[in-house]
Amino acid sequence: MALLAEHGYNGTGLKMILDAVQIPKGSFYNYFESKEQFVAEIIREYSSSLMVKFDRFVEESDQDPLGIIKTLYYQLLQSLEAQNYKKGCLLGDLAAEIGGQSEQCQRAMQWSYRQWQVRMVNLLKMAQQSGVIRTDIEAEQLSEIFWSYWEGTLLRMKIEGDVAGAKQSLDSVLDVLFKS
Amino acid sequence: MALLAEHGYNGTGLKMILDAVQIPKGSFYNYFESKEQFVAEIIREYSSSLMVKFDRFVEESDQDPLGIIKTLYYQLLQSLEAQNYKKGCLLGDLAAEIGGQSEQCQRAMQWSYRQWQVRMVNLLKMAQQSGVIRTDIEAEQLSEIFWSYWEGTLLRMKIEGDVAGAKQSLDSVLDVLFKS
Repeated sequence: MALLAEHGYNGTGLKMILDAVQIPKGSFYNYFESKEQFVAEIIREYSSSLMVKFDRFVEESDQDPLGIIKTLYYQLLQSLEAQNYKKGCLLGDLAAEIGGQSEQCQRAMQWSYRQWQVRMVNLLKMAQQSGVIRTDIEAEQLSEIFWSYWEGTLLRMKIEGDVAGAKQSLDSVLDVLFKS
Repeated sequence: MALLAEHGYNGTGLKMILDAVQIPKGSFYNYFESKEQFVAEIIREYSSSLMVKFDRFVEESDQDPLGIIKTLYYQLLQSLEAQNYKKGCLLGDLAAEIGGQSEQCQRAMQWSYRQWQVRMVNLLKMAQQSGVIRTDIEAEQLSEIFWSYWEGTLLRMKIEGDVAGAKQSLDSVLDVLFKS
């Protein structure tokens, strides 16, 4: 995951991965038929581990649904800041690089997106029901817009090497655009 | 540009580029000191050519500013659809892959972003003055949110291989979220 996050799909040779985990090439092919299949598994693993954190955060939080979303994404911005913006979202970065090319990875990305979306829609629906989020756009649609906005924001952060703009625009999206 | 759009930075070897344009390696180094510098130039060239089209479209259009934005981005979605979603935005894709790594390319991306932003802010300000776009968020901030939303949307299109969702969310952003 770390190598892919840093070097991307094409920049991460199988040899780099095998050297890092000290596994011989022959063993690799006992488990995966190709680098492509391996990366598809990595995408699922990446999303699953994020979703475990997402669920735990929601479960342990005593905030309202909008507060949960805000705190969660603020924390994500802070962790990206702490890593000097070298990393982004592995899902978004791989989508940019190979999203239109590898069918196996595409399926893993679609699956990952849906794992996230079902959770986000749930929070947005609760926020709509309690009257803090606008209801003239369906929660599914709001979640799609938010995902796109967020992934693009991570790209901007990489380009600018700065988190200030991202924090400000996150406030505008959640506290103004999405507000009822 | 085509090779980088298809294979990304790490997937496009210098040899591939030189073979495609039939230029010997020695000549390349008369003009560029590295692949990195070359790609930084490509990023500027890509943005400049897009901005020429942007300016021409604005100049020739008889629509109001919001209509211009809508038509422009609808057309972009259509051209991406026609290419089967294999291509996205070269700027966004390279930002995802190397945005946090190459300083030369980062500067070219920052420059490209500003080329776009000055034009978008101009249109949004006019739309705000004529009362069709909300004024409780500054045009600069709206343009940042729109850029992020758009780049993320292109990633989603790559993953899903479908333009329908993108068209629908573009309508929601411009006709509902940004509306005054």
